[in-house]
Amino acid sequence: MKKLLITAALSLAVSPLMADEGMWQPHQLPTIKKQLKKAGIKINPNKLTELTEFPMGAVISLGGCTASFLSPQGLVATNHHCAYGSIQFNSTAENNLLDKGFLAESLDKELPAAPGSRVYVTVNVSDVTSNVNAASGELSGLDRYKAIENTEKALVAECEQDAGHRCNVVSFHGGLEYYLIKQLEIKDVRLVYAPSSHIGKYGGDVDNWMWPRHTGDFAFYRAYVDKDGNPAEYSEDNVPYEPEHYLKVNKEGVDKGDFVMVAGYPGSTNRYRTSAEVKNQFEWWYPTFRNTLQEYISLIEETAPEGTDARVKYASTLAGLNNAEKNWGSMIESYAKGDLLERKIALENDLKAWLEANPNMQAKHGDAIDALNALILENIAEQERTLRSWAINRDTLTGTAARLYRLALEKQKPDAEREPGYQERDMVRFKEGLKSMERRWDADVEKALLKHFAPLYAELPADQRLKSYDEFMGIGETFDAEAFGKKVDVMYAKTKLNDLETRLAWMDKSVEDFKQSNDPYIQLAVATYDEKFERELESKERGGKFQELRPQYMSAIIDYYKSMDKPVYADANSTLRVTYGNVKGYSPKDGLYATPFTTLEGIAAKHTGEEPFNSPQNQLDLIKSKKYGDYLDKDLGSVQVNFLTTLDVTGGNSGSPTLNANAEFVGLIFDGVYESIIADWDYNDDLNRSIHVSSAYMLWVMEHVDNAHNLIKEMEIVD
Amino acid sequence: MKKLLITAALSLAVSPLMADEGMWQPHQLPTIKKQLKKAGIKINPNKLTELTEFPMGAVISLGGCTASFLSPQGLVATNHHCAYGSIQFNSTAENNLLDKGFLAESLDKELPAAPGSRVYVTVNVSDVTSNVNAASGELSGLDRYKAIENTEKALVAECEQDAGHRCNVVSFHGGLEYYLIKQLEIKDVRLVYAPSSHIGKYGGDVDNWMWPRHTGDFAFYRAYVDKDGNPAEYSEDNVPYEPEHYLKVNKEGVDKGDFVMVAGYPGSTNRYRTSAEVKNQFEWWYPTFRNTLQEYISLIEETAPEGTDARVKYASTLAGLNNAEKNWGSMIESYAKGDLLERKIALENDLKAWLEANPNMQAKHGDAIDALNALILENIAEQERTLRSWAINRDTLTGTAARLYRLALEKQKPDAEREPGYQERDMVRFKEGLKSMERRWDADVEKALLKHFAPLYAELPADQRLKSYDEFMGIGETFDAEAFGKKVDVMYAKTKLNDLETRLAWMDKSVEDFKQSNDPYIQLAVATYDEKFERELESKERGGKFQELRPQYMSAIIDYYKSMDKPVYADANSTLRVTYGNVKGYSPKDGLYATPFTTLEGIAAKHTGEEPFNSPQNQLDLIKSKKYGDYLDKDLGSVQVNFLTTLDVTGGNSGSPTLNANAEFVGLIFDGVYESIIADWDYNDDLNRSIHVSSAYMLWVMEHVDNAHNLIKEMEIVD
Repeated sequence: MKKLLITAALSLAVSPLMADEGMWQPHQLPTIKKQLKKAGIKINPNKLTELTEFPMGAVISLGGCTASFLSPQGLVATNHHCAYGSIQFNSTAENNLLDKGFLAESLDKELPAAPGSRVYVTVNVSDVTSNVNAASGELSGLDRYKAIENTEKALVAECEQDAGHRCNVVSFHGGLEYYLIKQLEIKDVRLVYAPSSHIGKYGGDVDNWMWPRHTGDFAFYRAYVDKDGNPAEYSEDNVPYEPEHYLKVNKEGVDKGDFVMVAGYPGSTNRYRTSAEVKNQFEWWYPTFRNTLQEYISLIEETAPEGTDARVKYASTLAGLNNAEKNWGSMIESYAKGDLLERKIALENDLKAWLEANPNMQAKHGDAIDALNALILENIAEQERTLRSWAINRDTLTGTAARLYRLALEKQKPDAEREPGYQERDMVRFKEGLKSMERRWDADVEKALLKHFAPLYAELPADQRLKSYDEFMGIGETFDAEAFGKKVDVMYAKTKLNDLETRLAWMDKSVEDFKQSNDPYIQLAVATYDEKFERELESKERGGKFQELRPQYMSAIIDYYKSMDKPVYADANSTLRVTYGNVKGYSPKDGLYATPFTTLEGIAAKHTGEEPFNSPQNQLDLIKSKKYGDYLDKDLGSVQVNFLTTLDVTGGNSGSPTLNANAEFVGLIFDGVYESIIADWDYNDDLNRSIHVSSAYMLWVMEHVDNAHNLIKEMEIVD
Repeated sequence: MKKLLITAALSLAVSPLMADEGMWQPHQLPTIKKQLKKAGIKINPNKLTELTEFPMGAVISLGGCTASFLSPQGLVATNHHCAYGSIQFNSTAENNLLDKGFLAESLDKELPAAPGSRVYVTVNVSDVTSNVNAASGELSGLDRYKAIENTEKALVAECEQDAGHRCNVVSFHGGLEYYLIKQLEIKDVRLVYAPSSHIGKYGGDVDNWMWPRHTGDFAFYRAYVDKDGNPAEYSEDNVPYEPEHYLKVNKEGVDKGDFVMVAGYPGSTNRYRTSAEVKNQFEWWYPTFRNTLQEYISLIEETAPEGTDARVKYASTLAGLNNAEKNWGSMIESYAKGDLLERKIALENDLKAWLEANPNMQAKHGDAIDALNALILENIAEQERTLRSWAINRDTLTGTAARLYRLALEKQKPDAEREPGYQERDMVRFKEGLKSMERRWDADVEKALLKHFAPLYAELPADQRLKSYDEFMGIGETFDAEAFGKKVDVMYAKTKLNDLETRLAWMDKSVEDFKQSNDPYIQLAVATYDEKFERELESKERGGKFQELRPQYMSAIIDYYKSMDKPVYADANSTLRVTYGNVKGYSPKDGLYATPFTTLEGIAAKHTGEEPFNSPQNQLDLIKSKKYGDYLDKDLGSVQVNFLTTLDVTGGNSGSPTLNANAEFVGLIFDGVYESIIADWDYNDDLNRSIHVSSAYMLWVMEHVDNAHNLIKEMEIVD
């Protein structure tokens, strides 16, 4: 399970950019040089703009997580929770690496990571806004959507001519700018070292998003390439990848107040949403969908009781659902306590007043705010349908059959014209998706969920429902739960899509094969395709309008901020960003202060012997005998374990190296505190804190608990 | 409900006296002058030895709580929870003072406090050890017990010749010293002012023993005397008592690090118990009896469901039980984490080694440790019986009948010879006890408790049970629960002791009346009296031995500490003590620091609108508009509400004035933090913190929330 690292910032006319707010594109850093120096950076900020130079060349993506090279032999450090799937993949009941931990004492003992594991090294980022604009020009709605998509596909196809690379076009500021990102795609990734989960996941879900924290959330991979140094699938003949740059590891971790920065791949934030979007999200969407989530969780817990195989299959789903439930709960709480909406409205009023006072700006931006807000309201009108149809759409067999049929249809076109996700470049992931169902799906649970939530859908007015679905499933004006249930049971009894080989075989079948199939789920996919496709086009029509109006709004915002000499960073979009700040505690509530460090003694104090607080005995013994070795922090009188910083991060930043003022590795970011969960929408200087595991604790565990001397030797340790 | 204010200290040979440990008798203060000055005291410590001078003359007891005079007209400040009964007593459904708060705008509007309310002003403390020793001399066991009791009664009787006074002989160090305490007993006490419970009890049981805290735990009484200045029962003709001394009120509260001291009447601590006692208490008694408590609580909750009259009657009992349950839970937790037992054993070993190395001391103290330990083990052997008989003994009707019959028997003797508790001086309290049953007793609950716990008693070996009780109740070798239940039902149906007038009438009846009564509970009392009296004598026999051996042990301890130049304070025993220390936060766990102050904003942040976090709207409005008035603490940027100190206090200290270095009133102590609950046994410098309400918040509430301008005017406010 990935922890959502949640943080955020809201730039307001009425208040300056918060001190440590911002997920900056590397090329922006020279523009905030003054702030970086004030915060304490020692290396030249200009160096951070060179993606293939030190230190940025050492920062890599795992797809969903971030990581970094820590040795010239391609040793990769990331979070334990980012490597969790690979540790699990290599575990058996007899040899449970999650429990015991794992250390390869030599290269030949390293284990293949979970299927599909990748290391992406960003090699180039180029601005392709003009290409996109040239193609989409004056178009609107669906036409604009398609023109942009086609331009993106063409750019990607051209870029991927360079073998061993994966390319993406990513929009910034909702489509005001487009960048083509080119990444080396290393396909042979191996597990090198992971401490026991009793260290790497210490505190588990109880401590998730919480401070004080004592989690050794780190693990090591190694990147492998073929003998010529090119990316290749796993092979015994492959050799360690030799990165041009890697990070030195500072064995002392950090001190209070230290400058720190994180380079990584934050996933998504919503800091420039309008007041209408914020109000709807916090006052309707989160509270409403959270209730559905709670039902969803209860239903899985009832249908797949503790101790059953089904529960094992849904463990990860449940963890994700509980995570979201806690996440949304925190955001609802923070929203109620704060004044986010008031500040959003104030910003919009200030922006309007500024436009009125500046005729040339008024002329340039026109009614950008009102136009976007009108579109937002149109979109909001759809959400009741979206929510109520959610259960129908989330059903795994329904979705799988629909994707397989779509693949057959798309395959009739030349590769370049296919829908993204159905191109040749997507087929490895497509197959992985079909395979993963084996480990995460149980018929009884799925049937129970579908039957439970179907009435929500069926209560929609007829014109909001899917006629073809209703017809196929026998849903009439009044919902007959018993008949629906029987229909579902019959379909489940008859379908073969629950069989992996069958699913994989459908990847190669023709449209005609689908039309003649007697598999009820394939039939459902065929029967509903046309109507669903119509809906998809309607959605793309709106998408195209957003691609037109959101950039206009952001352009107005940027000009307005520019008038106040305030640089603007884009919302996170899984591209490489840099955030900087300091090591600092915070006050979670009146009368309490979260100090910026935890220590070894805190691990022992939390230990109960029961999960998730079950520290390995040798670690407890070392703590009891105060065997701090080289890692004693004199100020703390112990070894630092986790620390807090003001860094502005979010999910996707997990595993990012934490760098000090000299760009030395001082730890890994792995979580944020509870009070900063709302930060995806609203950065708060007083409450936004991210949680890091200190390099001092990492090295202490490696040296004293796990005897990973070979790896310590491989790295360049400094102090 | 009174909150147990729990703290404590353990003086160890292996470690010096903890910095702020100690509940000192006022006459001891000159011996620790150096420490007091180092901590920051400004007034001359010698002044604190004069009980009738400033400031000690202003510190008074309410019996169970402490208080102080804050004006020349007898205005008394104490905790809201200490005045709770009086506020409740004056409340009706239509005029609920607990909810609304109460302020008498003039003297004639002040309300009588709850019946039995008293203000005790200590006027003299004299050492009567030699009197006691002269009488008990070489005696042991029961003879010693009786000799001491008789001496005490004679001293008290003589002392109480001075009308309007109440006297007590109290033992220190388990009987090494005896002091005669003489107190003026003011009997007309009136309620002057109490903020709403939404301020005075803000946080309720949820926040009990917790930090951060935001409770306005204060209220005001006034002491009245007759026109000649002598104590008198309530009369409209009475006038405010004019104390010789009262405290000035500092409107700024305290600053971080400030010297503070508390003078008050701490109830009971166990800091000099032996290792055998500690081991038994924490490893057997607390865990075992806590299970019983939990059953007890569940049973009341089931039998007296929420919303019933019965639940109202047991609200206070339940609060006390839950309090004890939490209290013991914390102590069990702290004991498991700490090394109290190891240190106790080390102390005893060190003491033995010291005695062996010092022949004259060895000769003086002989085998004091071993002799005491042997007696302790003998006592421990009784505890299983005590615990199992607890339910039988706690039954209210059984106990009431037994006390009434005992009264008839005791009345046959001259007053001076009667058992303490049955003398003329005790009759007011005796009657109050009989009356209070009306408000706290329900037949169904009592029957359920008795029936549920009786098997525990019945499973005791026959020789440990009470033959006369078994015979009366029909308990045989095997317990017939049904028969026992029926017997109880019949007794409850027939008894008239549930009627107040009947109970009061029995106070005046003869032994013969009892013997001829057909009230089953009176019959039970008569039937079991002789056997119970035998048991009482056995217990007194052991008591007499403890009175002999505990002083010997304490004498050895004191000599040993003296050899290290270490003053020894006695365990708390409800006599006047002084503790000093500083305003200081603490770290409740690794990575967290409890800052020493909370502020107004914290009240608003905790407010949910539901009990116990339901702040009055006008207080919330004042906070929102930052109306701090004269009470702004510039360091905090707000008004301080509660603060933490290192003071060494316990239950009975509730309501004690907190004094600054100049002996100005800066607040009231009202609780301790969770981690210091074990302090009744073991003081820990790092974790022992007491919680105070600041004078700044008191005055802010009085001026801005409640418009108590008349009282502010009456006090002498300084800054």
